[in-house]
Amino acid sequence: MPLLVMKFGGTSVADMDKIRNVARKVQREVDNGYRVIVVLSAMSGKTNELLGYVRDAAGGPEAAAPGFYDAREYDAILSSGEQVTSGILSIVLQELGVQARSWQGWQVPVKTTSAHGAARIDEIPTDNLNMKFGEGMEVAVIAGFQGISAENRITTLGRGGSDTTAVAFAAAFEAERCDIYTDVDGIYTTDPRITQKARKLEKIAYEEMLELASLGAKVLQTRSVELAMRYKVRLQVLSSFSDEPGTLVCDEEEIVEKNAVAGVASVRDEAKLTLISVADRPGIAAAIFGPLADAGVNVDMIIQNISEDGRTDMTFSCPMDQVPLATRAIEKAKASGEINYHALDADTGVAKVSIVGIGMRSNAGVAQKMFKALSDDGINIKVITTSEIKVSVLVDRKYMELAVQSLHDAFDLDKAS
Amino acid sequence: MPLLVMKFGGTSVADMDKIRNVARKVQREVDNGYRVIVVLSAMSGKTNELLGYVRDAAGGPEAAAPGFYDAREYDAILSSGEQVTSGILSIVLQELGVQARSWQGWQVPVKTTSAHGAARIDEIPTDNLNMKFGEGMEVAVIAGFQGISAENRITTLGRGGSDTTAVAFAAAFEAERCDIYTDVDGIYTTDPRITQKARKLEKIAYEEMLELASLGAKVLQTRSVELAMRYKVRLQVLSSFSDEPGTLVCDEEEIVEKNAVAGVASVRDEAKLTLISVADRPGIAAAIFGPLADAGVNVDMIIQNISEDGRTDMTFSCPMDQVPLATRAIEKAKASGEINYHALDADTGVAKVSIVGIGMRSNAGVAQKMFKALSDDGINIKVITTSEIKVSVLVDRKYMELAVQSLHDAFDLDKAS
Repeated sequence: MPLLVMKFGGTSVADMDKIRNVARKVQREVDNGYRVIVVLSAMSGKTNELLGYVRDAAGGPEAAAPGFYDAREYDAILSSGEQVTSGILSIVLQELGVQARSWQGWQVPVKTTSAHGAARIDEIPTDNLNMKFGEGMEVAVIAGFQGISAENRITTLGRGGSDTTAVAFAAAFEAERCDIYTDVDGIYTTDPRITQKARKLEKIAYEEMLELASLGAKVLQTRSVELAMRYKVRLQVLSSFSDEPGTLVCDEEEIVEKNAVAGVASVRDEAKLTLISVADRPGIAAAIFGPLADAGVNVDMIIQNISEDGRTDMTFSCPMDQVPLATRAIEKAKASGEINYHALDADTGVAKVSIVGIGMRSNAGVAQKMFKALSDDGINIKVITTSEIKVSVLVDRKYMELAVQSLHDAFDLDKAS
Repeated sequence: MPLLVMKFGGTSVADMDKIRNVARKVQREVDNGYRVIVVLSAMSGKTNELLGYVRDAAGGPEAAAPGFYDAREYDAILSSGEQVTSGILSIVLQELGVQARSWQGWQVPVKTTSAHGAARIDEIPTDNLNMKFGEGMEVAVIAGFQGISAENRITTLGRGGSDTTAVAFAAAFEAERCDIYTDVDGIYTTDPRITQKARKLEKIAYEEMLELASLGAKVLQTRSVELAMRYKVRLQVLSSFSDEPGTLVCDEEEIVEKNAVAGVASVRDEAKLTLISVADRPGIAAAIFGPLADAGVNVDMIIQNISEDGRTDMTFSCPMDQVPLATRAIEKAKASGEINYHALDADTGVAKVSIVGIGMRSNAGVAQKMFKALSDDGINIKVITTSEIKVSVLVDRKYMELAVQSLHDAFDLDKAS
């Protein structure tokens, strides 16, 4: 009998009406002949309520950071949210005549590392669930986000943990598909708030999805996409609140017609910092970026100009709100004599726009077409970086929307291939 | 190292300030040199919130009764309340520098029957906790009310389950004492709302406590007292909100000075039903009380008059609100020819007043002293029943408070023996 994994996030189980809606979707798949593994989050808001208890217990809001409290207790407390929703949905499903039961992480068991609060799944043995499927269970309702350590303590997987749980179950049980139900109805060619021409993709390759993280971050956690890619789990992103098909995230071999470009991503609040006239010597990049990494700055693009007279300009980008952090780290490195430069120039008015597509590999001239489209619309490119399936540019922030619209048109993304 | 069990109910952990208060009490016992097992309930109100989810899931308030939903899921949902408080208290204790950790029922494990919603504890293996005590754990914070079945499902113990959990741990770990912290400060000679002369008892025997259920019901569940009696667990009832010693419930051998009477109990809303002129024959009692039991009537006292001319009067008492139930059951039995009587008389205006004391066994004349005290105050006795350590009477309801005060004075209960 084919098996389907269905994952519902916190907004999809926020109240009893929504849970009934979830139950009907699950029942439909049972009626379609599937065995179903449902993975649930806590009711939206519940995790924050529980986190509030943890913070209060640890001595107030300033104690929010891990390390201020025992992460094992944090996990015992936080995991109760999914425990409740898994029980509720099981009862609702039973009311509909579906043979359902709840499974806590430790009951499956979902074996994880002992990195409490950010554990990784080591193994999901299939015996217990398969035995119950054999005895007539139609639906296993899994409390997502949680597992059990070798020390028999409850663990949680950290942000997006329920997506990861779902993908891991789909991999372990060789599910036909892993459906991630959420509050958006799929992955779009670009942010629909920027252009109404944005089109929902029928399919997208894992690699593209990972590169489009800025589009997909609110939908799928990077970690779950990586896991899906590794185990070839077919992921569908679709809406809890409609019956439309969503977007299938899958192996590129399953995508017959490939556009050169699958989507256009944008990140609004970026900054570009340039160290002007750095004394160029072996190890200079490490001397600059080591302190930045230590300070926790998320350096994105890095550009080094050609060296002249033993000096060079070094440019990098980072999130706008990390500029003070970056500036302090670099000035400290200069004061300690580790690096030497004439001036530090910070441009806090840039945005990043990227085109992503696996078709780029076999399609020369994509980057050139991008630069021309931007140039035709009078948009100046400040920095360029490329990877095998992505070209990113920094532009003045005020041109971000225009750049996205321009590229969306240039690559005909409003038309299915 | 001596070990203490401390149990705190829902009102004692209702908010963070109260949980901090609990933590200080626990810390004090650690400082006194005890290893401590703390047993917690859910925050007051939380269990009802969770029960509300269960009812909604099962299709509304009319689905409140078990059987309308899967009790295994009910248990998974309800047990999350204690999971949260056990984690919170552990963090707060750690903040105070106490080596504490939470234990869910399944982690200990608290092995129970599979009677979900009303499971009984079969066994509490001591290995896991003792190993951790050996490694430096000072306090084990147990999620009360819950356990695990042989089928690896979460079970709950039903009403008062956390008291039972506490006593069972005290028995398994041979604790020096089991302190039940609650919102009253001990067991009184009678209800202090009836007479200000009511005095807090220093000690009370298990048997007395069981007979005084009507006084103690709000404090200790009968089941936990029975368990304590069986395993000779010394139970102390004391207040979470003061530092006064409470009342020790213990073996009678530990009570050196025994009053003939330990306390006076009363139950306000009783009813007395009399079947007048019943045809007396072998098996008549079964013919009457069988149908009453089948109808769910809680028959308390039973009096049968001397038979004359083959007929007798049969009187019994039950809670006032069960009179319609009892009446219907008896009239049905008459209609079917199982019993035969001239009239059914229902007196719904009576109350039950009882004196209880293990000293009665060796002290003749206690009942006589009771009857005289009531008679002196002009109170007519309608029905009398006695057991080895209790004498109960039914009186007109309007005399209930007077009867209690009269007996409290007559047996000098305001004075310690």
